[in-house]
Amino acid sequence: MRIAIVAPSTPILPETAELVRRIAADACPDAELVFHPQCFLSHNHFAGPDAVRADAFVGAANDPGFDALWFARGGYGSNRIAQCVLARLGPAARGKAYLGYSDAGFLLAGLYRAGFPDLAHGPMPNDVRRDGGEAAVRRGLAWLTERAPDALEPGLGDRPAAAFNLTVFGHLLGTPLEPDLSGHELLLEDVSEHLYRTDRAMFHLSGQKALGTLAGIRLGRCTEVPPNDPDFGESEEEIFRFWCDRAGIPYLGRADIGHDAHNKVVPFGRR
Amino acid sequence: MRIAIVAPSTPILPETAELVRRIAADACPDAELVFHPQCFLSHNHFAGPDAVRADAFVGAANDPGFDALWFARGGYGSNRIAQCVLARLGPAARGKAYLGYSDAGFLLAGLYRAGFPDLAHGPMPNDVRRDGGEAAVRRGLAWLTERAPDALEPGLGDRPAAAFNLTVFGHLLGTPLEPDLSGHELLLEDVSEHLYRTDRAMFHLSGQKALGTLAGIRLGRCTEVPPNDPDFGESEEEIFRFWCDRAGIPYLGRADIGHDAHNKVVPFGRR
Repeated sequence: MRIAIVAPSTPILPETAELVRRIAADACPDAELVFHPQCFLSHNHFAGPDAVRADAFVGAANDPGFDALWFARGGYGSNRIAQCVLARLGPAARGKAYLGYSDAGFLLAGLYRAGFPDLAHGPMPNDVRRDGGEAAVRRGLAWLTERAPDALEPGLGDRPAAAFNLTVFGHLLGTPLEPDLSGHELLLEDVSEHLYRTDRAMFHLSGQKALGTLAGIRLGRCTEVPPNDPDFGESEEEIFRFWCDRAGIPYLGRADIGHDAHNKVVPFGRR
Repeated sequence: MRIAIVAPSTPILPETAELVRRIAADACPDAELVFHPQCFLSHNHFAGPDAVRADAFVGAANDPGFDALWFARGGYGSNRIAQCVLARLGPAARGKAYLGYSDAGFLLAGLYRAGFPDLAHGPMPNDVRRDGGEAAVRRGLAWLTERAPDALEPGLGDRPAAAFNLTVFGHLLGTPLEPDLSGHELLLEDVSEHLYRTDRAMFHLSGQKALGTLAGIRLGRCTEVPPNDPDFGESEEEIFRFWCDRAGIPYLGRADIGHDAHNKVVPFGRR
């Protein structure tokens, strides 16, 4: 199979691509990884200007020669191109698998809303740079190439699911990217946010009428949390329970996702 | 007149209250400032537990002996009590003036949605601690006690207006606190946010269908902006223009509001 790698948010380094290629050669020698040169561009905050990132994504997604599109990295920026990209995707794009998380959530949300059937929240090539990141890359490849069951988040059941970064998800609510998650288990993780911000994001999320139809919320890991001044006095789990209780959304416990090497794969919809 | 001061978010120090009392004694000797003891409480992140903050706000708002309610300070926390507070307000609350900004925007939004006629975004007592903050406190008092025209944001015209902190406003969109701002000029300021976050917040805001009916957006000051890594490459004004253009919302220029001593008063609705 052939996997296209593009970077709708921020760039990766050529040596990162080389590391991932070497892991793939060992883990799945039949898979060909094609890093789009756009992955290595740098324009202000982004991996190239909006139009260049959009063209790279659309080109790879619409190319019937690729079986999957792998988001190179998160950061920030996929929201700026999402609507323009979605409008340009053809039939070959709909037949592909898409894997990413963090800022990639903007595009995954829009693709899910548009009915794309094969989307997942999970590891990306740039995760190889994390402590223990090779395992994350191998997990991502195992899902992309063989839908390996042990790559999946272990709590997934019969209900449809979706997973997002809490802050990214909060910023797509009410926009043309927001998908219908009625009946879904929503798995949320976050990184580098003060606990008062996590609390505020959960106020916002749980106050949305449309999300009253969720089957429930599960909490992934919140990592690299800056110290709250003063101490917030509640853990992230207490925060999630508090807002879920107030909104009448079932809190369903923890989820094995996060901005780390252990981040498991969550396919969107039913498995 | 009598002005009640409560702290629905974070606490102030007794010496701050004393400084503000001294300024008021000079600026408006006929006004009596009553700092609710709740202003000085501390419970984790907040000026007392949720129920205590809610009781203080409701008690002051429903007391016909007060002409105005002044938010002591922003920070974080008024969203946690807003809906419970709004449900408990009686006729005396509706006849009062309310002045605050920053995190107070959650309550101001809910009060505006509920049809309260005399609300304004502007200086708070704790601003006395800012560089040049005495002028801010005098400006707030001038609006509260005599609706002084020179306290007002100078660009206000005939159209109704509202003003918010961008991040606070983003977090009340879609919640029961979101007011109808059709035909309004929306003035936005922010503090302590990276420019990529300002960009993301404007993506979210400008993507809301309900905000397509705004008369336009004006940009206040964005202060204490942490360095973007890498440089974002666009100023806050370029960011605002970009998203307003994409959404077809008129960008109407700068506004004289912000987290600083120069923050002018913006009455909600028509002046």
